[in-house]
Amino acid sequence: MFNFTIKNKEKSARTGKLETIHGTIDTPVFMPVGTKATVKAVLPETVKAAGAQIILSNAYHLMLRPTAERIHQLGGLHKFMNWSGPILTDSGGYQVMSLSDLRKVTDDGVTFQSHIDGTKIYLTPERLMDVQFLLGSTISMVLDECVSYPAEQNVAEKAMWRSLKWAERAKNGYVVRDGYALFGIIQGGVYENLRRASTTGLMDIGFDGYAIGGLAVGEEQSEMFRVIEHVNAQLPENKPRYLMGVGKPDDIIGAVKRGVDMFDCVLPTRSGRNGQAFVRKCNTKKGTINIRNASFADDLLPLDQLCGCYTCKNYTRAYLHHVVRMNEIIGSMLMTIHNIFYYQDLMRAIRRAIEENRLNNFVEF
Amino acid sequence: MFNFTIKNKEKSARTGKLETIHGTIDTPVFMPVGTKATVKAVLPETVKAAGAQIILSNAYHLMLRPTAERIHQLGGLHKFMNWSGPILTDSGGYQVMSLSDLRKVTDDGVTFQSHIDGTKIYLTPERLMDVQFLLGSTISMVLDECVSYPAEQNVAEKAMWRSLKWAERAKNGYVVRDGYALFGIIQGGVYENLRRASTTGLMDIGFDGYAIGGLAVGEEQSEMFRVIEHVNAQLPENKPRYLMGVGKPDDIIGAVKRGVDMFDCVLPTRSGRNGQAFVRKCNTKKGTINIRNASFADDLLPLDQLCGCYTCKNYTRAYLHHVVRMNEIIGSMLMTIHNIFYYQDLMRAIRRAIEENRLNNFVEF
Repeated sequence: MFNFTIKNKEKSARTGKLETIHGTIDTPVFMPVGTKATVKAVLPETVKAAGAQIILSNAYHLMLRPTAERIHQLGGLHKFMNWSGPILTDSGGYQVMSLSDLRKVTDDGVTFQSHIDGTKIYLTPERLMDVQFLLGSTISMVLDECVSYPAEQNVAEKAMWRSLKWAERAKNGYVVRDGYALFGIIQGGVYENLRRASTTGLMDIGFDGYAIGGLAVGEEQSEMFRVIEHVNAQLPENKPRYLMGVGKPDDIIGAVKRGVDMFDCVLPTRSGRNGQAFVRKCNTKKGTINIRNASFADDLLPLDQLCGCYTCKNYTRAYLHHVVRMNEIIGSMLMTIHNIFYYQDLMRAIRRAIEENRLNNFVEF
Repeated sequence: MFNFTIKNKEKSARTGKLETIHGTIDTPVFMPVGTKATVKAVLPETVKAAGAQIILSNAYHLMLRPTAERIHQLGGLHKFMNWSGPILTDSGGYQVMSLSDLRKVTDDGVTFQSHIDGTKIYLTPERLMDVQFLLGSTISMVLDECVSYPAEQNVAEKAMWRSLKWAERAKNGYVVRDGYALFGIIQGGVYENLRRASTTGLMDIGFDGYAIGGLAVGEEQSEMFRVIEHVNAQLPENKPRYLMGVGKPDDIIGAVKRGVDMFDCVLPTRSGRNGQAFVRKCNTKKGTINIRNASFADDLLPLDQLCGCYTCKNYTRAYLHHVVRMNEIIGSMLMTIHNIFYYQDLMRAIRRAIEENRLNNFVEF
């Protein structure tokens, strides 16, 4: 029931179909981020209407509030948030490192203070499997230890080996169910020997898909692409590959060319709330516009002249400029609607380009 | 083209039909408030889907930002904000008094500092007619002088006479167009002799409809009802009557019983953003619930068990509790959707009750 089928190939890039208990996903796919059981500022129907077939949520955040037990009792995450499609939940390794105070990592697990109310929490790879089971996550992620960038090789190495041991414990704690999946996360910073060991180790344990973690944390794009190429050369063809937390349209196009199938990033939603719109380069070379800019106060054009989203069909830049500057909620709503649609349009165009064997000359975005 | 037809009567209460250039309105009607060219936290399609046939916006706010001239240049307020139905614009007398600094009122007009950027602005009844013409308002309101509550009789009297003179100048400055309308505003505080003089004066000038201003500013409900009864006894039967800034469901029911046709209030939208939901009394005697209350954390019921809105059909109180407590925008969106729908449902039930001659035993809400 959890099947990944490759449909078309152009060099390393591929289109595919990921079948899950909650629906089918066309890859390469971009997953809008719904950290706390909501894709910020939009209704789930809007996310679906944009063409999104899977969203990402976060086990760490939901475990703290409203708790996994509560969501389970209420019928699971899908019912809770009114999203019936597939949900991938990040386990929260990154969030434990970046959001919590007084964390202490041992081989057994991690102790930290909740960033919400300061309560002390002890987290293990097994507990995170329970949490994601209770949520009813379509795709669960293993707990990993993330290091900050730049990291010395010995720091990255220690975290990589620890993450690998945690991944094995996660696999053992994971309840196999038809149509659900568990992904491992490759770590190792920018060090190819560490990435190789991590990839080999995870493949030996065996997962339904492989995520590349610890990238897009500050390194150059060329550095990121180098690591992706290195890792993907090792990974099996027939499993989905997920580049975590990426990224800008150019990052995504480059990663797809190097064989990545799945992406997530807060960029379209977060920057939408900040007044930034992603637009096709025929609108502006830069690929983004900040609607707060005074030049848009009298602009009768839509955000993106080639976009078919609700925002672009119904509102001028002048109106968006007004409501964003006035801090009206509808500003966040309309900008987010556009950005989510833009990203889904980008992925549609990428898939079409691969089908037509012209991703290498991809010029639409 | 601007026609008001009474359909049914039950004692002083009446149902009617208000025909305008931008569409027909069933009365008694509640107008959601869209002060700055957006009904806060909802899309215009959602407002329409709730059954709202007219919204209120504010000439004062729009005149300051993005300016009436700009909206005119962009095609008018309807196009600007993507709402094709009727729009009533309050002229802003109340806002001038409550929001601006250093105001100085003379018989000629009012000088004040913008509450946004401190620029000095001079406002006259004629200028406000120009502003509402530029916006393309379906129903324009005259500029009036509002006094704070409680006001001494001599203060209320002075403001009432001044407002009356301003109303005459507004009428002279108003451009008559088929299907558009200009309403006068009755002032006079809680003093019946002043209300009588104001009503007579406005009727002598002649308006398409009459608003009762200066109520729901802190006086007892019984006091408000007394003034409404007094004013409505004087007003012509065949013109719409609009009670400004009202109010709670009980206020509306009581005012309809006394012959009022139109209402507006920020209550459903503002309180929605604060976590308060209006619910039928079968849910709770009080008629409102605050979703932040801990008792809702595990509540699988919808906000209102008899409500058919999008929020109540798709989300539990437990989910709303979670997203409102987390300050997620979707919390404001879903609560507002419900409250707007609730108010429209209330008006539908009121109209039906009048048609069936049972408003006096109105028990649905």
